[in-house]
Amino acid sequence: MSALPEPPYYAVIFTSQRTHVDADYGGMADRMVALAAEQPGYIGVESARGDDGLGITVSYWRTPEDIAAWRRNAEHKIARDTGRSDWYQHYTLRVAKVERAYAWARTDGNKDPQS
Amino acid sequence: MSALPEPPYYAVIFTSQRTHVDADYGGMADRMVALAAEQPGYIGVESARGDDGLGITVSYWRTPEDIAAWRRNAEHKIARDTGRSDWYQHYTLRVAKVERAYAWARTDGNKDPQS
Repeated sequence: MSALPEPPYYAVIFTSQRTHVDADYGGMADRMVALAAEQPGYIGVESARGDDGLGITVSYWRTPEDIAAWRRNAEHKIARDTGRSDWYQHYTLRVAKVERAYAWARTDGNKDPQS
Repeated sequence: MSALPEPPYYAVIFTSQRTHVDADYGGMADRMVALAAEQPGYIGVESARGDDGLGITVSYWRTPEDIAAWRRNAEHKIARDTGRSDWYQHYTLRVAKVERAYAWARTDGNKDPQS
Protein backbone atom coordinates (compact mmCIF):
# COMPACT_ATOMS: atom_id res chain seq x y z
CA MET A 1 0.00 0.00 0.00
CA SER A 2 0.93 3.61 -0.36
CA ALA A 3 2.76 5.81 2.15
CA LEU A 4 0.63 7.73 4.61
CA PRO A 5 1.93 11.28 5.06
CA GLU A 6 0.11 13.86 7.15
CA PRO A 7 -2.85 15.41 5.25
CA PRO A 8 -3.61 17.49 3.34
CA TYR A 9 -2.49 15.97 0.06
CA TYR A 10 -4.28 14.92 -3.12
CA ALA A 11 -5.76 11.70 -4.50
CA VAL A 12 -6.54 10.93 -8.13
CA ILE A 13 -9.22 8.22 -8.12
CA PHE A 14 -9.33 6.47 -11.50
CA THR A 15 -12.08 3.86 -11.89
CA SER A 16 -12.09 1.96 -15.18
CA GLN A 17 -13.74 -0.92 -16.97
CA ARG A 18 -11.35 -2.84 -19.21
CA THR A 19 -12.14 -4.04 -22.71
CA HIS A 20 -10.89 -7.48 -23.80
CA VAL A 21 -8.20 -5.81 -25.91
CA ASP A 22 -4.75 -6.49 -24.45
CA ALA A 23 -2.36 -4.41 -26.63
CA ASP A 24 0.36 -4.62 -23.95
CA TYR A 25 -1.88 -3.17 -21.24
CA GLY A 26 0.11 -4.77 -18.41
CA GLY A 27 3.46 -3.51 -19.68
CA MET A 28 2.14 0.01 -20.11
CA ALA A 29 0.47 0.00 -16.69
CA ASP A 30 3.73 -1.06 -15.04
CA ARG A 31 5.60 1.59 -17.00
CA MET A 32 3.18 4.33 -15.91
CA VAL A 33 3.57 3.37 -12.24
CA ALA A 34 7.36 3.55 -12.59
CA LEU A 35 7.20 6.83 -14.50
CA ALA A 36 4.75 8.42 -12.05
CA ALA A 37 7.08 7.53 -9.18
CA GLU A 38 9.77 9.71 -10.77
CA GLN A 39 7.58 12.82 -10.88
CA PRO A 40 7.75 15.74 -8.44
CA GLY A 41 5.15 15.51 -5.69
CA TYR A 42 4.43 11.82 -6.15
CA ILE A 43 3.50 10.08 -2.89
CA GLY A 44 2.33 6.63 -3.93
CA VAL A 45 -0.20 4.53 -5.83
CA GLU A 46 -2.65 1.73 -5.01
CA SER A 47 -4.37 -0.38 -7.63
CA ALA A 48 -6.81 -3.30 -7.75
CA ARG A 49 -8.76 -4.95 -10.58
CA GLY A 50 -11.32 -7.71 -10.13
CA ASP A 51 -12.22 -10.60 -12.42
CA ASP A 52 -15.14 -8.54 -13.78
CA GLY A 53 -12.63 -6.11 -15.33
CA LEU A 54 -13.51 -3.21 -13.02
CA GLY A 55 -10.39 -1.57 -11.64
CA ILE A 56 -9.60 1.24 -9.25
CA THR A 57 -6.25 3.01 -9.21
CA VAL A 58 -5.63 5.76 -6.68
CA SER A 59 -2.47 7.83 -6.98
CA TYR A 60 -1.45 10.31 -4.30
CA TRP A 61 0.25 13.66 -4.88
CA ARG A 62 1.40 16.61 -2.82
CA THR A 63 -0.43 19.35 -4.77
CA PRO A 64 -2.87 19.90 -7.67
CA GLU A 65 0.05 21.40 -9.61
CA ASP A 66 1.94 18.09 -9.32
CA ILE A 67 -1.11 16.31 -10.78
CA ALA A 68 -1.35 18.84 -13.62
CA ALA A 69 2.36 18.40 -14.42
CA TRP A 70 2.02 14.60 -14.53
CA ARG A 71 -0.94 15.05 -16.84
CA ARG A 72 1.28 17.01 -19.24
CA ASN A 73 3.91 14.23 -19.36
CA ALA A 74 4.21 13.16 -23.02
CA GLU A 75 4.52 9.43 -22.38
CA HIS A 76 1.59 9.55 -19.98
CA LYS A 77 -0.47 11.29 -22.64
CA ILE A 78 0.25 8.50 -25.14
CA ALA A 79 -0.82 5.93 -22.53
CA ARG A 80 -4.08 7.79 -21.91
CA ASP A 81 -4.76 7.96 -25.65
CA THR A 82 -4.20 4.21 -25.94
CA GLY A 83 -6.54 3.76 -22.98
CA ARG A 84 -9.33 5.36 -24.96
CA SER A 85 -8.51 3.68 -28.27
CA ASP A 86 -7.92 0.16 -26.91
CA TRP A 87 -8.05 -0.66 -23.20
CA TYR A 88 -11.07 0.94 -21.58
CA GLN A 89 -14.79 0.62 -22.07
CA HIS A 90 -15.43 3.57 -19.79
CA TYR A 91 -13.76 5.34 -16.90
CA THR A 92 -14.22 8.05 -14.33
CA LEU A 93 -11.54 10.26 -12.85
CA ARG A 94 -11.89 12.26 -9.65
CA VAL A 95 -9.38 14.60 -8.03
CA ALA A 96 -9.87 14.85 -4.28
CA LYS A 97 -8.12 16.55 -1.37
CA VAL A 98 -7.29 14.08 1.40
CA GLU A 99 -8.33 15.65 4.70
CA ARG A 100 -7.96 12.69 7.09
CA ALA A 101 -6.13 9.38 6.90
CA TYR A 102 -5.27 6.52 9.20
CA ALA A 103 -3.99 3.00 8.96
CA TRP A 104 -4.52 -0.21 10.87
CA ALA A 105 -2.48 -3.43 10.86
CA ARG A 106 -3.10 -6.77 12.54
CA THR A 107 -0.15 -6.14 14.85
CA ASP A 108 -2.07 -3.10 16.24
CA GLY A 109 -4.65 -5.39 17.88
CA ASN A 110 -8.42 -5.39 17.51
CA LYS A 111 -9.23 -1.96 18.86
CA ASP A 112 -10.80 0.56 16.49
CA PRO A 113 -7.87 2.79 15.44
CA GLN A 114 -10.16 5.77 14.94
CA SER A 115 -11.93 5.66 18.34
CA MET B 1 -19.62 2.60 -11.51
CA SER B 2 -20.90 5.24 -9.17
CA ALA B 3 -23.00 8.28 -10.04
CA LEU B 4 -21.13 11.46 -10.92
CA PRO B 5 -22.76 14.48 -9.29
CA GLU B 6 -21.28 17.96 -9.49
CA PRO B 7 -18.43 18.43 -6.95
CA PRO B 8 -17.81 19.11 -4.17
CA TYR B 9 -18.69 15.90 -2.37
CA TYR B 10 -16.71 13.40 -0.30
CA ALA B 11 -14.91 10.13 -0.96
CA VAL B 12 -13.93 7.49 1.60
CA ILE B 13 -11.02 5.54 0.14
CA PHE B 14 -10.64 2.20 1.92
CA THR B 15 -7.65 0.09 0.85
CA SER B 16 -7.35 -3.32 2.45
CA GLN B 17 -5.39 -6.53 2.34
CA ARG B 18 -7.53 -9.61 3.02
CA THR B 19 -6.50 -12.50 5.23
CA HIS B 20 -7.39 -16.03 4.12
CA VAL B 21 -10.18 -16.13 6.73
CA ASP B 22 -13.58 -16.18 5.05
CA ALA B 23 -16.09 -15.95 7.95
CA ASP B 24 -18.85 -14.85 5.54
CA TYR B 25 -16.85 -11.92 4.22
CA GLY B 26 -18.76 -11.81 0.91
CA GLY B 27 -22.16 -11.81 2.57
CA MET B 28 -21.18 -9.07 4.98
CA ALA B 29 -19.61 -6.97 2.21
CA ASP B 30 -22.81 -7.20 0.15
CA ARG B 31 -24.88 -6.33 3.22
CA MET B 32 -22.73 -3.26 3.95
CA VAL B 33 -23.16 -1.98 0.38
CA ALA B 34 -26.95 -2.40 0.66
CA LEU B 35 -27.03 -0.78 4.10
CA ALA B 36 -24.81 2.15 3.07
CA ALA B 37 -27.14 2.84 0.14
CA GLU B 38 -29.98 3.46 2.60
CA GLN B 39 -28.09 6.14 4.54
CA PRO B 40 -28.61 9.91 4.19
CA GLY B 41 -26.06 11.53 1.88
CA TYR B 42 -25.00 8.31 0.17
CA ILE B 43 -24.00 8.84 -3.48
CA GLY B 44 -22.48 5.53 -4.55
CA VAL B 45 -19.72 2.98 -4.12
CA GLU B 46 -17.03 1.39 -6.31
CA SER B 47 -15.05 -1.67 -5.32
CA ALA B 48 -12.34 -3.89 -6.80
CA ARG B 49 -10.16 -6.65 -5.36
CA GLY B 50 -7.36 -8.41 -7.22
CA ASP B 51 -6.11 -11.99 -6.98
CA ASP B 52 -3.36 -10.81 -4.59
CA GLY B 53 -6.05 -9.94 -2.02
CA LEU B 54 -5.52 -6.18 -2.23
CA GLY B 55 -8.82 -4.36 -2.52
CA ILE B 56 -9.95 -0.76 -2.90
CA THR B 57 -13.46 0.38 -2.03
CA VAL B 58 -14.40 4.01 -2.55
CA SER B 59 -17.73 5.23 -1.21
CA TYR B 60 -19.06 8.69 -2.04
CA TRP B 61 -21.04 10.93 0.29
CA ARG B 62 -22.53 14.42 0.25
CA THR B 63 -20.90 15.72 3.47
CA PRO B 64 -18.44 14.74 6.23
CA GLU B 65 -21.44 14.60 8.60
CA ASP B 66 -23.01 11.87 6.43
CA ILE B 67 -19.78 9.88 6.70
CA ALA B 68 -19.68 10.35 10.48
CA ALA B 69 -23.31 9.17 10.78
CA TRP B 70 -22.61 6.04 8.72
CA ARG B 71 -19.65 5.38 10.95
CA ARG B 72 -21.96 5.40 13.97
CA ASN B 73 -24.31 2.81 12.42
CA ALA B 74 -24.38 -0.17 14.81
CA GLU B 75 -24.37 -2.89 12.15
CA HIS B 76 -21.53 -1.14 10.32
CA LYS B 77 -19.55 -1.03 13.56
CA ILE B 78 -19.94 -4.81 14.00
CA ALA B 79 -18.73 -5.33 10.43
CA ARG B 80 -15.66 -3.15 11.06
CA ASP B 81 -14.90 -5.06 14.26
CA THR B 82 -15.10 -8.35 12.34
CA GLY B 83 -12.81 -6.83 9.73
CA ARG B 84 -10.12 -6.37 12.34
CA SER B 85 -10.68 -9.70 14.09
CA ASP B 86 -10.99 -11.86 10.94
CA TRP B 87 -10.89 -10.41 7.43
CA TYR B 88 -8.07 -7.89 7.10
CA GLN B 89 -4.34 -8.08 7.44
CA HIS B 90 -4.06 -4.31 7.25
CA TYR B 91 -5.98 -1.37 5.84
CA THR B 92 -5.84 2.35 5.28
CA LEU B 93 -8.76 4.74 5.23
CA ARG B 94 -8.70 8.21 3.78
CA VAL B 95 -11.46 10.82 3.69
CA ALA B 96 -11.10 13.20 0.77
CA LYS B 97 -13.08 16.08 -0.70
CA VAL B 98 -13.76 15.57 -4.40
CA GLU B 99 -12.98 18.82 -6.20
CA ARG B 100 -13.13 17.73 -9.85
CA ALA B 101 -14.66 14.76 -11.64
CA TYR B 102 -15.29 13.64 -15.18
CA ALA B 103 -16.24 10.51 -17.04
CA TRP B 104 -15.46 9.01 -20.42
CA ALA B 105 -17.17 6.20 -22.29
CA ARG B 106 -16.28 4.48 -25.55
CA THR B 107 -19.34 6.04 -27.19
CA ASP B 108 -17.77 9.49 -26.55
CA GLY B 109 -15.03 8.80 -29.13
CA ASN B 110 -11.27 8.92 -28.70
CA LYS B 111 -10.82 12.59 -27.85
CA ASP B 112 -9.44 13.42 -24.39
CA PRO B 113 -12.53 14.40 -22.36
CA GLN B 114 -10.52 16.76 -20.19
CA SER B 115 -8.85 18.76 -22.97
